[in-house]
Amino acid sequence: MSFTPPVNAIGYLLRHGVDFDSIGQSDVFEETSPELLDAILSGAGDFARDVLAPTNWDGDQSPATLDGIDVIASPGFKQAYHQFVEGAWQTVAMPSEIGGMGLPGAVSVATNEMLYAANMALGLCPMLTSSAVKAIDAHATDALKSTYLPKMLAGEWTGAMCLTEPQAGSDLGPVRTKAIDNGDGTYAITGQKIYITWGDHDCADNIIHLVLARLPDSPEGSRGISLFLSPKYHVNDDGSLGDRNNFKPIGLEHKLGIHGSPTCVMEFMNATGYLVGEVNRGLSCMFTMMNEARLFVGVQGVAIGERAYQAALDYAQERVQGIPPGQEPGAAIIDHPDVRRMLIDMKAKLMGARTICFATAEASDLGNHAREGLLTPIAKAYGSDTGVDVSSIAVQVHGGMGFVEETGAAQHYRDSRIAPIYEGTNGIQAMDLIGRKLRRDGGEAMRELITDLRASIDLVTSASGQGGVDLSVCAAAMERGLETMTTATDIVLNASEVDALGVATPYLELCAKVISGSLLARTVARGLHSEDNQSAAMASLARYHALRIMPTADGLLDAIRAGADPVFDFPRDQLADL
Amino acid sequence: MSFTPPVNAIGYLLRHGVDFDSIGQSDVFEETSPELLDAILSGAGDFARDVLAPTNWDGDQSPATLDGIDVIASPGFKQAYHQFVEGAWQTVAMPSEIGGMGLPGAVSVATNEMLYAANMALGLCPMLTSSAVKAIDAHATDALKSTYLPKMLAGEWTGAMCLTEPQAGSDLGPVRTKAIDNGDGTYAITGQKIYITWGDHDCADNIIHLVLARLPDSPEGSRGISLFLSPKYHVNDDGSLGDRNNFKPIGLEHKLGIHGSPTCVMEFMNATGYLVGEVNRGLSCMFTMMNEARLFVGVQGVAIGERAYQAALDYAQERVQGIPPGQEPGAAIIDHPDVRRMLIDMKAKLMGARTICFATAEASDLGNHAREGLLTPIAKAYGSDTGVDVSSIAVQVHGGMGFVEETGAAQHYRDSRIAPIYEGTNGIQAMDLIGRKLRRDGGEAMRELITDLRASIDLVTSASGQGGVDLSVCAAAMERGLETMTTATDIVLNASEVDALGVATPYLELCAKVISGSLLARTVARGLHSEDNQSAAMASLARYHALRIMPTADGLLDAIRAGADPVFDFPRDQLADL
Repeated sequence: MSFTPPVNAIGYLLRHGVDFDSIGQSDVFEETSPELLDAILSGAGDFARDVLAPTNWDGDQSPATLDGIDVIASPGFKQAYHQFVEGAWQTVAMPSEIGGMGLPGAVSVATNEMLYAANMALGLCPMLTSSAVKAIDAHATDALKSTYLPKMLAGEWTGAMCLTEPQAGSDLGPVRTKAIDNGDGTYAITGQKIYITWGDHDCADNIIHLVLARLPDSPEGSRGISLFLSPKYHVNDDGSLGDRNNFKPIGLEHKLGIHGSPTCVMEFMNATGYLVGEVNRGLSCMFTMMNEARLFVGVQGVAIGERAYQAALDYAQERVQGIPPGQEPGAAIIDHPDVRRMLIDMKAKLMGARTICFATAEASDLGNHAREGLLTPIAKAYGSDTGVDVSSIAVQVHGGMGFVEETGAAQHYRDSRIAPIYEGTNGIQAMDLIGRKLRRDGGEAMRELITDLRASIDLVTSASGQGGVDLSVCAAAMERGLETMTTATDIVLNASEVDALGVATPYLELCAKVISGSLLARTVARGLHSEDNQSAAMASLARYHALRIMPTADGLLDAIRAGADPVFDFPRDQLADL
Repeated sequence: MSFTPPVNAIGYLLRHGVDFDSIGQSDVFEETSPELLDAILSGAGDFARDVLAPTNWDGDQSPATLDGIDVIASPGFKQAYHQFVEGAWQTVAMPSEIGGMGLPGAVSVATNEMLYAANMALGLCPMLTSSAVKAIDAHATDALKSTYLPKMLAGEWTGAMCLTEPQAGSDLGPVRTKAIDNGDGTYAITGQKIYITWGDHDCADNIIHLVLARLPDSPEGSRGISLFLSPKYHVNDDGSLGDRNNFKPIGLEHKLGIHGSPTCVMEFMNATGYLVGEVNRGLSCMFTMMNEARLFVGVQGVAIGERAYQAALDYAQERVQGIPPGQEPGAAIIDHPDVRRMLIDMKAKLMGARTICFATAEASDLGNHAREGLLTPIAKAYGSDTGVDVSSIAVQVHGGMGFVEETGAAQHYRDSRIAPIYEGTNGIQAMDLIGRKLRRDGGEAMRELITDLRASIDLVTSASGQGGVDLSVCAAAMERGLETMTTATDIVLNASEVDALGVATPYLELCAKVISGSLLARTVARGLHSEDNQSAAMASLARYHALRIMPTADGLLDAIRAGADPVFDFPRDQLADL
């Protein structure tokens, strides 16, 4: 169950897929030199492999426990997290104004992929902290910022997001947790929150909760929710920790996967909180960091998929069973065509999903918010679906061994399954894509993306043949795929609301296949122009994608053409009877 | 976590999908009257719902345990199994000559689907017994038959299959377990077997193992393996039980799912065995029952999918979150287009996979062995893949609740994952389809199937419009799908061995989609001609399939056209480095 950081694959995609030159020219980021990039990737890879990865299985087998009002993390987690803090890994993508390294988000996608692959359950903790830091930085008072940000930025204190309640999940409008103004600049928060990831634990000295709650005189629904900061331990004026605040974990969920991540039920009983942002603007404050969090969930899918792929590859290289065609007795199953197909299928899908994650981060880094917004739901949904898909194939490569827990393949399969659900289900992503991101701007951002990708067909065509590497099937698949995507986009833009919602998921999937295949081909074309010697191998993944993955977009176009009729056709009252 | 036996759906598919008239005219089966069919379905449904289903969660949470040399089944399993024996459910599809009910296999597919849905882990035990009975009946001596079959047929003694060893799984040629001729008509068996489903337990008085082992002077590989019967307890001449035989369970696997099914490591130490069939013909004796076992694994996929669907439907009808378009506040999520899409998608896929399972059993019942052989790998692979797919969608419908084990959705997701693996992985099924079933007979059986399905397009067209029910999109999808399938078949028939193997899985998937959609449409057409009042609802599933599932076959044709090149294109030595 070792983990090999995929620094070559990630490095290639960063070098040729992300425009660091333009990013470096902005006011926001420093220059990211190739040397710095290599150093960061290799350092994160070493940390992921040596420190985090060895704790992954223990986290699965020994979930966090609730001891009174304290959650005790899985064995080894506390020590590993301390090394995370010491390595300053929390600060990679944090703005330099607040003490972060100020590196572009694309770099943070790369380093985080490796951390998640090594231990997704533990990796969630810094992910939550990062989101909390960004929300506080964007919306809190200077006093709150100076009290909380430095420690959180260092990772010494972690963050948690208290959004969900039993009746308020995908739709947070019905949140019932109450906040009462104490009249002294603080609020008293009372209510129960569920699904609080890393809501309590013993890895850090303090845990800073961001809590959605409702003031007594606020409007009903989503326009009456405010955001509060509520620390586990009060912070004295001198920065030292005071008494414990009036909230506690009262239960831990027994989950399918990510056992090492304590998912808490939190009870707030007149807990002290501080308003973050304006009254009744809590949801929009939360949405500040939603794009980033959603992107990182897509990255998690790729990460788990990568780790599952590695395990399957190891197994396929060792396991002997039958004689593959053209091989001698004793040849491993990797030479069986269907086993090799599974491995290449995993690899091509992962590489494709990665390109979407990097493109999303790049759009953010370049300040292209329309494109960032457009790509985010695709990165989240396709990345997470790919994680489930690939980890399922990895189980299959293992045969019977894959179903035995000790092998480890099953853990990836279980862990990956949360990613399509949290931070907005993939159905919500699809609705977001066709609603807010496509139809609201009349398709402008999508048309720009398609135009960009179309423009790069020439690049792919001109690169094809260099060093004997053929990309002609990629160019052809891009032509066809982008045409399909254009047609699908026009259909969705002109559809009724119900028709658009009824085809939202196949539309997202179609876009993801075409975009990932196109980005992969474009990246390889750039790599060939740069004479990168890994381009030949990368090109074979792009060709596999062009021949075997992108063409499946056409079948989804049929579904989109059919609209929502097939979905609502079946008589609702017979759903249970037939 | 209740279970509603899907007797309406299954009954409809049996009435209009299976040719019981022709089956009843054969020498093998008695007439299956509609009344008898209804009685059997309803009886099996009641038993599944009332007796088996309530034990399912306990089996998951309290796996079987190994106590010394005895396996103790999960709580409630022993009692439930006894009721299974009392109800004579083991005998449904057993030949009447040996005391069975002599009903067609199609009926047994129907009843077993409900048993598996209720408790897949427990349902495996009678499945193994059934396979063992058929092997013994086909190959053992009269003495062995008269000693073992009556008790096994009744279910009082169960069967187990000891095939796999650590180095011999998909390929049984390397089996090392030894058998020595004792010179008295018995053999001494020594070796270790793994993955022995229900290899030991306390639900029955005796367990009859069929063991693959090698005689000292036998040829190497698969031509030197013989089959032996080895009972847990010796059977005295008067039929009473004697001493325990010299084998025992020495370990239980810790598995991803089907926790209630004890998967044993069995150690044989000079255990007494009796030869079944001829020396060195053990593998072919095993293959006697392989078709049936593979079909039933496909049925398991459908079964778990159905149960997962029911749970998702229940949740979607109760859960309120957001306001679906055109609905009032308080409307459940079932009216959200993307949630409804998931439900209909599950239902249409399940119904399609069911038609393939029934068609496979029908071919067997009609003595059409070529078609049975052709459809079996498709039923196994597509049924089991559908189980995984549908149970994953069911988790998704539940949102965060789906990831919490107590909800039960996660169990179905875990349980279903074994079906694509055991009884020959789905990769093995695809190889079997293109090798033994397609290319060996020059495509004759496949062409006959395509011709049959094409011929029924007229039936679909003529039924369309009856009672206002439109099937025109189904006829169109059949035309197009069968054309795609013909093209794909020609490609595979004319391909090199490696090319054929490299596209085996997409070819199987393509066939499954077209065949399931075509069979579903044909069944509905027959139902319309019979004025069955469930036809309108069934037709909407057939239309969904025609508009959203069958068209995806075209994308797979592209993959098939590309052959194995994309699979072997990537440099093997860079698989781990890039």
